[in-house]
Amino acid sequence: MNSFLSIKDVENLPGLVKDALEIKKNPNMYKELGRNRSMCLIFLNPSLRTRLSSQKAAFNLGLNTAVLDVGSQGWKLEFEDGIVMDGDKAEHIKEAAAVIGSYFDVVAIRAFAKLEDRAEDYSEQVMESFKKYCPAPVINMESSTGHPLQAFTDLITIEEYKTVERPKVVLTWAPHPKALPQAVANSFSRWMLEAEFDLTVTHPEGYELVDEAVGNAKVEYDQQKAFKDADFVYAKNWSSYHEYGKVLSTDPSWMVTSKKMSLTKNGKFMHCLPVRRNVIVEDTVLDSDQSLVIQQAANRVISMQTVLKNILEGLKK
Amino acid sequence: MNSFLSIKDVENLPGLVKDALEIKKNPNMYKELGRNRSMCLIFLNPSLRTRLSSQKAAFNLGLNTAVLDVGSQGWKLEFEDGIVMDGDKAEHIKEAAAVIGSYFDVVAIRAFAKLEDRAEDYSEQVMESFKKYCPAPVINMESSTGHPLQAFTDLITIEEYKTVERPKVVLTWAPHPKALPQAVANSFSRWMLEAEFDLTVTHPEGYELVDEAVGNAKVEYDQQKAFKDADFVYAKNWSSYHEYGKVLSTDPSWMVTSKKMSLTKNGKFMHCLPVRRNVIVEDTVLDSDQSLVIQQAANRVISMQTVLKNILEGLKK
Amino acid sequence: MNSFLSIKDVENLPGLVKDALEIKKNPNMYKELGRNRSMCLIFLNPSLRTRLSSQKAAFNLGLNTAVLDVGSQGWKLEFEDGIVMDGDKAEHIKEAAAVIGSYFDVVAIRAFAKLEDRAEDYSEQVMESFKKYCPAPVINMESSTGHPLQAFTDLITIEEYKTVERPKVVLTWAPHPKALPQAVANSFSRWMLEAEFDLTVTHPEGYELVDEAVGNAKVEYDQQKAFKDADFVYAKNWSSYHEYGKVLSTDPSWMVTSKKMSLTKNGKFMHCLPVRRNVIVEDTVLDSDQSLVIQQAANRVISMQTVLKNILEGLKK
Repeated sequence: MNSFLSIKDVENLPGLVKDALEIKKNPNMYKELGRNRSMCLIFLNPSLRTRLSSQKAAFNLGLNTAVLDVGSQGWKLEFEDGIVMDGDKAEHIKEAAAVIGSYFDVVAIRAFAKLEDRAEDYSEQVMESFKKYCPAPVINMESSTGHPLQAFTDLITIEEYKTVERPKVVLTWAPHPKALPQAVANSFSRWMLEAEFDLTVTHPEGYELVDEAVGNAKVEYDQQKAFKDADFVYAKNWSSYHEYGKVLSTDPSWMVTSKKMSLTKNGKFMHCLPVRRNVIVEDTVLDSDQSLVIQQAANRVISMQTVLKNILEGLKK
Repeated sequence: MNSFLSIKDVENLPGLVKDALEIKKNPNMYKELGRNRSMCLIFLNPSLRTRLSSQKAAFNLGLNTAVLDVGSQGWKLEFEDGIVMDGDKAEHIKEAAAVIGSYFDVVAIRAFAKLEDRAEDYSEQVMESFKKYCPAPVINMESSTGHPLQAFTDLITIEEYKTVERPKVVLTWAPHPKALPQAVANSFSRWMLEAEFDLTVTHPEGYELVDEAVGNAKVEYDQQKAFKDADFVYAKNWSSYHEYGKVLSTDPSWMVTSKKMSLTKNGKFMHCLPVRRNVIVEDTVLDSDQSLVIQQAANRVISMQTVLKNILEGLKK
Repeated sequence: MNSFLSIKDVENLPGLVKDALEIKKNPNMYKELGRNRSMCLIFLNPSLRTRLSSQKAAFNLGLNTAVLDVGSQGWKLEFEDGIVMDGDKAEHIKEAAAVIGSYFDVVAIRAFAKLEDRAEDYSEQVMESFKKYCPAPVINMESSTGHPLQAFTDLITIEEYKTVERPKVVLTWAPHPKALPQAVANSFSRWMLEAEFDLTVTHPEGYELVDEAVGNAKVEYDQQKAFKDADFVYAKNWSSYHEYGKVLSTDPSWMVTSKKMSLTKNGKFMHCLPVRRNVIVEDTVLDSDQSLVIQQAANRVISMQTVLKNILEGLKK
């Protein structure tokens, strides 16, 4: 593996999952792989799980890590070509990416959607520019339109808990007071489809995801119908793609409840966290054995470590 | 040792002090103890000594460390059960503590008193909730009502410099322009009593500490009487416990001076730092051989390393 | 080497350059030197290259590093003697430096010029106070009047790319919308003179550097004359030393262009980064083979690592 910006960078998904499950059994088995290597984690937005699980993954690989908190405000990078930089942007991506990539063997970046301009967010300017100008492999720690490390985590978790070869997986929109990006939902859908699971996406009208993400998944506007016989229910809020960045509904009847979970085939509940209790999902679901949210979050270490293992092996050649 | 929230978690205080003095002689003697282990330091408030000495202690133990600066503003955690989380708090302590505790072998937290609501501060909600929901041992890096790592440091320092078995130790309130928590004073008092030293607490009326902390220490409202024949004078400002969080006095006559120190038995001066010169204590005291403040601060590494050593040994079983 | 505050701390410049070129060939050759040693990086101002290259240098030396971001606002240190500290400054440099220096084997600090009071900036209060009160060696990561790690980097780069023994080096002022310190220009000039290169400094009238920095370099107010037959052109903006901290000119005719570079002897272009494209220098220069800015930035690791190597070797005795 060279970079890891989206599922398109994964050549052999079953092989990657196999690696992950092996690493989970013995987290220190690749301790030598990071020797004399180092990584930089760049955060343009806040992070808890991604920051900590990435550092832990690096510890497990013996990989030195520097963390750079730049903030969406603090580091005004210029991305345009040919511009006269006499405004508030003090550095061009060409230099920034080239320099950081000269220091480190791997560069991981978080840069959220701004939810203001759909074309800009979906152009993935930050990720694509880093990939273009950074000589080191780049890892997406959540970009404006995708969060592949989370989706890989989710896939690992489902592989661990599934009881049938091709489980029924439901991605359900759930209400939230603030506008959130589509990144997690987009990546989850893509990875489930790539894993050839039976995916249903359910949400209120107006919350359709971008075509490229939803692909040939079933779309069901009736949440209860969607839940029927599900093996896994994945809840997530996202703002509208079509009326870009808008909150079209906060309808509490879309919250995941124990009653709705009873429609499933003893299905497991999943969420990427942080989760608003009794808004996204009822306490009774989260606090039950059906919930996998803590196991999922724990697997964030495994997904990052697996991606790093594959990238570091690539460097060794 | 499992967690380290207060002196109640210490089973064998003389043994812990013995460990500390041994570690001080040979700081790298437990270098293997941290191998394949990792720690997370979580700061809800600023820190200089605690942050740096904790990292240094971890280096000495070969323990990988991730630092998380969340700020009292930045990380709005919900602590209540059963609440509908549709406000500004995006994550419940149940998930946050469970996840961080799944990544790391030890979790250390700083969460200062807010000095607004005594019952809330003295409930130690942050520490107690982390201990309840975090599967890894938890270390208190100063909570709303206690700072046991500082008190352990102070005890180590007194053990190093005492010339009699049971020294006379004076904890004196000193003036300060801003309201400060009672945490350092509370813990110092408890640890001195547990060590069976001859403790006198002196302060203006209205600055009485919580009963549980002051225990059977002598309370003396006349500072000069208190200083008489003292082996150690420990100065610290705190805001009122009874008129909670209030600054009742900034009386400069309570500053520690060379003249007052001359009442002691060639006593040593101590303070946890940072210290306001010529407000808490005169330059002439701080800059004399009587002052132990730098030696104390240096021992912050030893106290953290000793606590970590005991916790890591507990994990090994 | 003990501390590294300016070129005055370098006893043997050719030897230091030789070390640097050797380390560049084999960055991990001194991996054992950092064992059981640790460093603290203190940033009173933002940093990208210095922060990351310093951490990378430490990784290469097996040196543990703690990073402290204090901000010019967040950490109000008192530097005056004998003052009553009842204002907003909670800690005196005497304690702060003594404590940090007791934890770490090396302390590196960044503290920019405030550009308000020339005498204050040129007194180098922060660096000099740390050196005075900190028991560990101190490294300047850019102070109010100098940036020796950058100048050392620049020297290494010129040594790598020069084609004659004593190259003609031109330091040219270039326009910038905001007032910048003189630190980089001051140090560059000093190091070039110490290396006995043929140095010309060119700038608009009013931008004369402090005498001590410009020494016996040629000063040429006609930029094009200055560029003639240059082997290296180093562009940098600085605010006025004489009308202290003022922006006297933003004249775009001082921008470095391809046309001006054609006056040189196939000269190389250098800048310390971040660089404002088409303000300081034209895209066509930066994107050409004449530009060394990325190679320079990469050498920031080498200069820090070389300084650390010499300091750590000093500790070993």
